Amino acid sequence: MIIVPEHAIAGLVSASDCLEAVEQVFAAMARRSARNFPVIREALGHADALYGFKSGFDRESLALGLKSGGFWPGNISRGLTNHQSTVFLFDADTGACRAVVGGNLLTALRTAAASAISIKHLARPDARVLGMIGAGHQSSFQLRAALAQRHFEKVVGWNLHQPDLARLNAVATELGVPFEAVDLDRLGAEADVIITITSSFDPILMAAQVRPGTHLACMGTDTAGKQEVEPALVAAATVFTDEITQSITLGEAQHAAAQGLLAAAQITELGAVINGTHPGRTSAQEITLFDGTGVGLQDLAVASVAVDRALDKGVAITVDFQSPIGPAGATSP
Amino acid sequence: MIIVPEHAIAGLVSASDCLEAVEQVFAAMARRSARNFPVIREALGHADALYGFKSGFDRESLALGLKSGGFWPGNISRGLTNHQSTVFLFDADTGACRAVVGGNLLTALRTAAASAISIKHLARPDARVLGMIGAGHQSSFQLRAALAQRHFEKVVGWNLHQPDLARLNAVATELGVPFEAVDLDRLGAEADVIITITSSFDPILMAAQVRPGTHLACMGTDTAGKQEVEPALVAAATVFTDEITQSITLGEAQHAAAQGLLAAAQITELGAVINGTHPGRTSAQEITLFDGTGVGLQDLAVASVAVDRALDKGVAITVDFQSPIGPAGATSP
Repeated sequence: MIIVPEHAIAGLVSASDCLEAVEQVFAAMARRSARNFPVIREALGHADALYGFKSGFDRESLALGLKSGGFWPGNISRGLTNHQSTVFLFDADTGACRAVVGGNLLTALRTAAASAISIKHLARPDARVLGMIGAGHQSSFQLRAALAQRHFEKVVGWNLHQPDLARLNAVATELGVPFEAVDLDRLGAEADVIITITSSFDPILMAAQVRPGTHLACMGTDTAGKQEVEPALVAAATVFTDEITQSITLGEAQHAAAQGLLAAAQITELGAVINGTHPGRTSAQEITLFDGTGVGLQDLAVASVAVDRALDKGVAITVDFQSPIGPAGATSP
Repeated sequence: MIIVPEHAIAGLVSASDCLEAVEQVFAAMARRSARNFPVIREALGHADALYGFKSGFDRESLALGLKSGGFWPGNISRGLTNHQSTVFLFDADTGACRAVVGGNLLTALRTAAASAISIKHLARPDARVLGMIGAGHQSSFQLRAALAQRHFEKVVGWNLHQPDLARLNAVATELGVPFEAVDLDRLGAEADVIITITSSFDPILMAAQVRPGTHLACMGTDTAGKQEVEPALVAAATVFTDEITQSITLGEAQHAAAQGLLAAAQITELGAVINGTHPGRTSAQEITLFDGTGVGLQDLAVASVAVDRALDKGVAITVDFQSPIGPAGATSP
């Protein structure tokens, strides 16, 4: 068994590694070669924690396993991040646990990769202004990955708590792109690409604020009840997602779907665009919207990269975990 | 993070350790202090494998996590057991992965513990003959644990493939109890306690073959469609189980329930007997039947024992897995 600790991930896996891995698995999902298993998510009644699993199997890469962990709101006072996760990869040929991989940074990177992939395939080639709604921990990952996809000349950002925009300013400045804090009207009027990455339960961005030709990546809604944009905006857009079932039940499209403004059949998997079986954006006036809900296969894909890199660099910790003859004998336990 | 490899389990955890741990968690389940989360079980379409998770949380012991793995029918040709599983324990206070524990032998032991606990609490005190139906790998674990619960003077056994009964003969002989291969009529007529541990999809034991006062532990049925005893026998018995939902959907009681012979409300959790909130057996003529379906909390309970023992003995492998400051910085991934 291979162990790749959380503290080793940053030195092993880059944002572009993750983009490539997630792009491949989105494509495999659309080819029906890879699928996610049902998500388990449970309130523990202890430490206010939410705990669960996202899991799946990719028959092409043979990535099999799960990410487990959740949200522990008291962690920050212990010097730990509130979101804790670990990825477990299994050998698809034997069922043995192949690897245990720290999942905190990987989760941030795979989530950022998803919106970046949507920009790569759906934003106008001439997109020059990137709008960011939300400035929490995850936003810096989304921004960094997004800036690599187009020749962005400016970032405009909005956050409920304006001081947090310093986080986005720092990333944009580091990458040589000017940053400006704006209100939502200006953000919608200026941005060619908008990423929403909040924990909102009410719509923040309205249809009337968004220009034709905009690409939106709505990344914050991953639970029933959450919502970042007006359902009319979802209804007006050509909608893409990672997984359609999640999109209409717990993703940003849940509200438009519940209101009868959008049917599941009108939503396209981003993987179909990657595969070329869907054209993606078909005009410079079209609004495209990617509903990023987050799937277990993303986690398995990036954790597999971490394991490969750790083996290549000779930094994987290996543990003799299996008994070569299985359980200790059928007759003498 | 603590690693307890598969090959270390046999030296750390005994059958009686497992009996105590499983008894405690059955009791916690009946007190509603511990619960299992939904089971995931998926056919992979690769290597003919079934893969999945059983998981849960015990608020009393703080055992949190899952067992993952499944059934890989080709493993035996690789020198591995077909059932492969690994238990992952999480820190209920932080969500960090606390331990990775080999789950193959533990699964055999916790399954044996369940039928032994049912015998301890439900069989007549004067039970003297133990009947075994099924002689596969798991049967020797059931037999060994069962023999410790009463002063059994004889074991009678039946198996579809009679030569496999040598396995039961060896265990009984080792423990100083005579063994005899018998037909099912004689088995039912002689046995005070009967354990069924097969992979049957048709009833093997009929109601007419079983005497009043018998205790049955039906341990083989863990999937929709499987069946070991006639539904009329289930209907005639006072039925106990580990988890009622599983009992009527994928346990031995599924068929009696589907035929309207048994309602969920007539089934009692074994934990209620352990807790003393249900009297268990109330007469020497009563037929009691334990429907052992297998729950994730059993796995967590015995894996927790393995971790405690490994720490006590100084044989736990520890890996520095967590980054003390969480992901590698919010602004510089």
